Amino acid sequence: MATVGFIGLGNMGGPMAANLVKAGHQVTVFDLSEAALAQAQEAGCAVASDVGEVTKGADFVISMLPADHHVEGVYLGSDGLQTQLAKQTLVIDCSTISAETARKVGAELAERGISFIDAPVSGGVGGAKAGTLTFICGGRESAVDAARDVLNAMGKNVFRAGDVGAGQVAKICNNMLLSVLMAGTSEALQLGIAHGLDAKVLSEIMLQSSGRNWTLEVYNPCPDVMEGVPSSNDYQGGFLVDLMAKDLGLAQQAALRSGAATPMGSLTLNLYRSWSQLGHGREDFSSIFKYVTPQTKK
Amino acid sequence: MATVGFIGLGNMGGPMAANLVKAGHQVTVFDLSEAALAQAQEAGCAVASDVGEVTKGADFVISMLPADHHVEGVYLGSDGLQTQLAKQTLVIDCSTISAETARKVGAELAERGISFIDAPVSGGVGGAKAGTLTFICGGRESAVDAARDVLNAMGKNVFRAGDVGAGQVAKICNNMLLSVLMAGTSEALQLGIAHGLDAKVLSEIMLQSSGRNWTLEVYNPCPDVMEGVPSSNDYQGGFLVDLMAKDLGLAQQAALRSGAATPMGSLTLNLYRSWSQLGHGREDFSSIFKYVTPQTKK
Amino acid sequence: MATVGFIGLGNMGGPMAANLVKAGHQVTVFDLSEAALAQAQEAGCAVASDVGEVTKGADFVISMLPADHHVEGVYLGSDGLQTQLAKQTLVIDCSTISAETARKVGAELAERGISFIDAPVSGGVGGAKAGTLTFICGGRESAVDAARDVLNAMGKNVFRAGDVGAGQVAKICNNMLLSVLMAGTSEALQLGIAHGLDAKVLSEIMLQSSGRNWTLEVYNPCPDVMEGVPSSNDYQGGFLVDLMAKDLGLAQQAALRSGAATPMGSLTLNLYRSWSQLGHGREDFSSIFKYVTPQTKK
Amino acid sequence: MATVGFIGLGNMGGPMAANLVKAGHQVTVFDLSEAALAQAQEAGCAVASDVGEVTKGADFVISMLPADHHVEGVYLGSDGLQTQLAKQTLVIDCSTISAETARKVGAELAERGISFIDAPVSGGVGGAKAGTLTFICGGRESAVDAARDVLNAMGKNVFRAGDVGAGQVAKICNNMLLSVLMAGTSEALQLGIAHGLDAKVLSEIMLQSSGRNWTLEVYNPCPDVMEGVPSSNDYQGGFLVDLMAKDLGLAQQAALRSGAATPMGSLTLNLYRSWSQLGHGREDFSSIFKYVTPQTKK
Repeated sequence: MATVGFIGLGNMGGPMAANLVKAGHQVTVFDLSEAALAQAQEAGCAVASDVGEVTKGADFVISMLPADHHVEGVYLGSDGLQTQLAKQTLVIDCSTISAETARKVGAELAERGISFIDAPVSGGVGGAKAGTLTFICGGRESAVDAARDVLNAMGKNVFRAGDVGAGQVAKICNNMLLSVLMAGTSEALQLGIAHGLDAKVLSEIMLQSSGRNWTLEVYNPCPDVMEGVPSSNDYQGGFLVDLMAKDLGLAQQAALRSGAATPMGSLTLNLYRSWSQLGHGREDFSSIFKYVTPQTKK
Repeated sequence: MATVGFIGLGNMGGPMAANLVKAGHQVTVFDLSEAALAQAQEAGCAVASDVGEVTKGADFVISMLPADHHVEGVYLGSDGLQTQLAKQTLVIDCSTISAETARKVGAELAERGISFIDAPVSGGVGGAKAGTLTFICGGRESAVDAARDVLNAMGKNVFRAGDVGAGQVAKICNNMLLSVLMAGTSEALQLGIAHGLDAKVLSEIMLQSSGRNWTLEVYNPCPDVMEGVPSSNDYQGGFLVDLMAKDLGLAQQAALRSGAATPMGSLTLNLYRSWSQLGHGREDFSSIFKYVTPQTKK
Repeated sequence: MATVGFIGLGNMGGPMAANLVKAGHQVTVFDLSEAALAQAQEAGCAVASDVGEVTKGADFVISMLPADHHVEGVYLGSDGLQTQLAKQTLVIDCSTISAETARKVGAELAERGISFIDAPVSGGVGGAKAGTLTFICGGRESAVDAARDVLNAMGKNVFRAGDVGAGQVAKICNNMLLSVLMAGTSEALQLGIAHGLDAKVLSEIMLQSSGRNWTLEVYNPCPDVMEGVPSSNDYQGGFLVDLMAKDLGLAQQAALRSGAATPMGSLTLNLYRSWSQLGHGREDFSSIFKYVTPQTKK
Repeated sequence: MATVGFIGLGNMGGPMAANLVKAGHQVTVFDLSEAALAQAQEAGCAVASDVGEVTKGADFVISMLPADHHVEGVYLGSDGLQTQLAKQTLVIDCSTISAETARKVGAELAERGISFIDAPVSGGVGGAKAGTLTFICGGRESAVDAARDVLNAMGKNVFRAGDVGAGQVAKICNNMLLSVLMAGTSEALQLGIAHGLDAKVLSEIMLQSSGRNWTLEVYNPCPDVMEGVPSSNDYQGGFLVDLMAKDLGLAQQAALRSGAATPMGSLTLNLYRSWSQLGHGREDFSSIFKYVTPQTKK
């Protein structure tokens, strides 16, 4: 089994580190939150006294951080890990950040002989706890292959999208598309309901027709069509509107850089932003269903 | 086997009538085109000398016509079939028209004791030829059940969405959603390509993630990702941009009547209209992929 | 001075009839509301006991009604005025309805030798009270000229857009454009504010640059930039969100009929519908400014 | 009169430098293009042999460069002017760049005691030649006031939007709004034309109604409504589609940073990008009128 340093024990990182321990890996963790560290210790992790300590003897250093500047700070900052990492260590950043920052970190570590892959995840908090995450990786083929064992301890799918940064690109492409599926499915259901159709019947018909998509399969946005999904639980839990808005912002940043035309993705960004601003930022992203409720006739 | 009158032998209606004959039904057809009639005769249909003749002794009268006014004219016009249909005949209109017109025809026929269901199809010309269409029906449950045998001769799925008109509503909901899936998937693929990803790899990743949808499964819009689809055949054949624009227009008419908010469906209508106006109306609707090509940097 | 029959004494019609009296015309009114009739009587109007009575000896019959079916009912219904109007009477419909209905009414009256013009207004309740409305007319040039005197008693501008129905088309084109100006100006101001600019300073700069438009001139949507406008009065009064949504629906109906691409107008319809659905339907349409408030950063 | 160093002699910078000479200022220019330098010499400018030479004895250094990295390179690069500028020199950057870069340059120069203002322009090549540009400035009030004389030699309006960077913000707010006015006006005119209205008559009506805006006043996008505008000259000259797309990209970058919701501006960015990609990037931005031509009915 491997020796793993793990940085960032939030809603995602905490359960991920715990799953590594369960799989038999030796895990040393660091986070700024004492509570998070205590919980990790209970799960069987060793606790580092400073971030540098996680690198000691590590086969892998894994990070799960909120935004670009955290990742850049941890690896390239003035007290960054770039000078402390050993050459045999493989760095795996699971944060969702811009491809640019991933490439920058990867390039600077490569200059020091340290391997790096970006490996953003999909599957949410539920997937992190259940160990069923999907990892979408960017990096050399050999590096991604070397990471498969530890990643499989936390998830069930490991994809390689291309070189360093490609994992981030594929992740935002997927999530931009997901936002479009969710908004489009919500609209189609609401249009049907407004014309007297039963949401379950319409969902079933579209699921078996050319409207079939992931949201109809496992994440129906209309309350009480499906059990165990956020829409049937008052849109609590799941993948927050604010996090979708963040990912859509990353997608638009990428589109601006490449000159890509994304009329649909631009629109969902604006829908999710407005929806957040109207007070729904902490609801599951399927709550956009409520946003396209037909105007009550006067 | 049944005696069937069939009106409208276009790209869809022609092969549908031929499949009825293959299944052993006795089919009498009518169309304004001599060529279409000749082809149907070759396929084993009897040819009516006027539209009224298709009603004689018919268990079912099936129509497949281009637009609302054709359907209204055939059944309710001054020489319409309303006065010639026998009460045991079940009328099945497979045209894609507004729910209002379907309800109007259904109601006027009902007053004369004649049963009517709307049964618009999905599956395109390919599905019509292969006999694999999906029928989305609106009408009384007993009437839809009575139609199943003849519909199954032309397709493989028969859904009942609700009462008369509900088939049309469900069809446009599905097709509006389909347009959103297609445009969104095209954008996501183009964004990935613009950032150096391989379209096949990205398609595979999204297919196994939350971006999964019908277009990635069977109708990838990016050339050479999938065999045997319009995108790999210069966007020839398939479901035309102009037909998608027509269906999206029907969806917006419905949305206007009900006050439904459809930001995504409104946008795809405008995208498909512009795309048609720019000369792509006769291409497959997956050609919208070309429309969201990134702007070449200057 | 002229003898005028006036039908429809709502927020607009009431003050319009009163202004006709002030200008010296002899006005007989009809409405279903007793209160409205009483108020009109106080303003000097004669009150008809039924709608037909307003046609007696009338040089002009003017109607100001909420929707298509009211106008069609009054002029073409089973007890409609079509059989009671004298040939010398000029019918002026000031309602905002579809061009189709206007043309239908115009054509049926024309067959009976009665002249008709559509003359929808802009200027709102304020303009109706102040007698400063703009009338956008459709009809024969001679008919529009014949109407100028009475129209000028209620407004200050009379335009002729073309033949019958053209007034309605021009009105919805203008109002669709107005919605775009309002939403676009709101966004631009909010973007500036989010980046530290003063709304007054930015308004002044854009007003003197290529961003100049009617909303910056007389109807600034940002509170406290301008005095005496709805935005400085908690968005009370003015032109209601629901009425703008109605006009945008008429514009989209027209666009659907002609195949016009209206990406901007489709989007504003959806914005205004959502805004209404979220509870702002009775606020002034400049309240869309609040809808594009930047997402508070988390 | 003042001693001015001028960097960047493109379509805008060339005529701007020439106008400074005409007003009596002593102007030393630098550009990488020999042809541009020769033309400036002919107009009475002195030619610098390297970029540093323009700073010698300069009261003002003015730059007019294509993009952020040029501006950053000239002032902060390894051979940048930051070490060569004297403290009494006022730096005026007229380029359209991001507010961030403007603030970065301003802050670094301020640390060295050098005053800086951003002063992006509106008015296009025509305004640059005619000396009728509008300057939208960001910087300390005293610095903007000190710049007024030289700016007035090249334009007719000088606004101060706020501190350093505010000029850039106001410029992109204005141009984002302008794109909305142009697209919205084009749509409204096309909708009217599709319903039989005369474009001149409709333009006149909207100009005198609440649809009034800068494009209807001086830049009508419909051919042959107005003389001397790009739409009446096959959309040649004017403000290019590609430049509008660039400014809209800057606006979206700003919106992403602040979390501003800009549904209209996001849509026009996508419209202008598609329009460019379809081969219209070198046409005037009013050519978007052609993009919203109604779909020809089949």
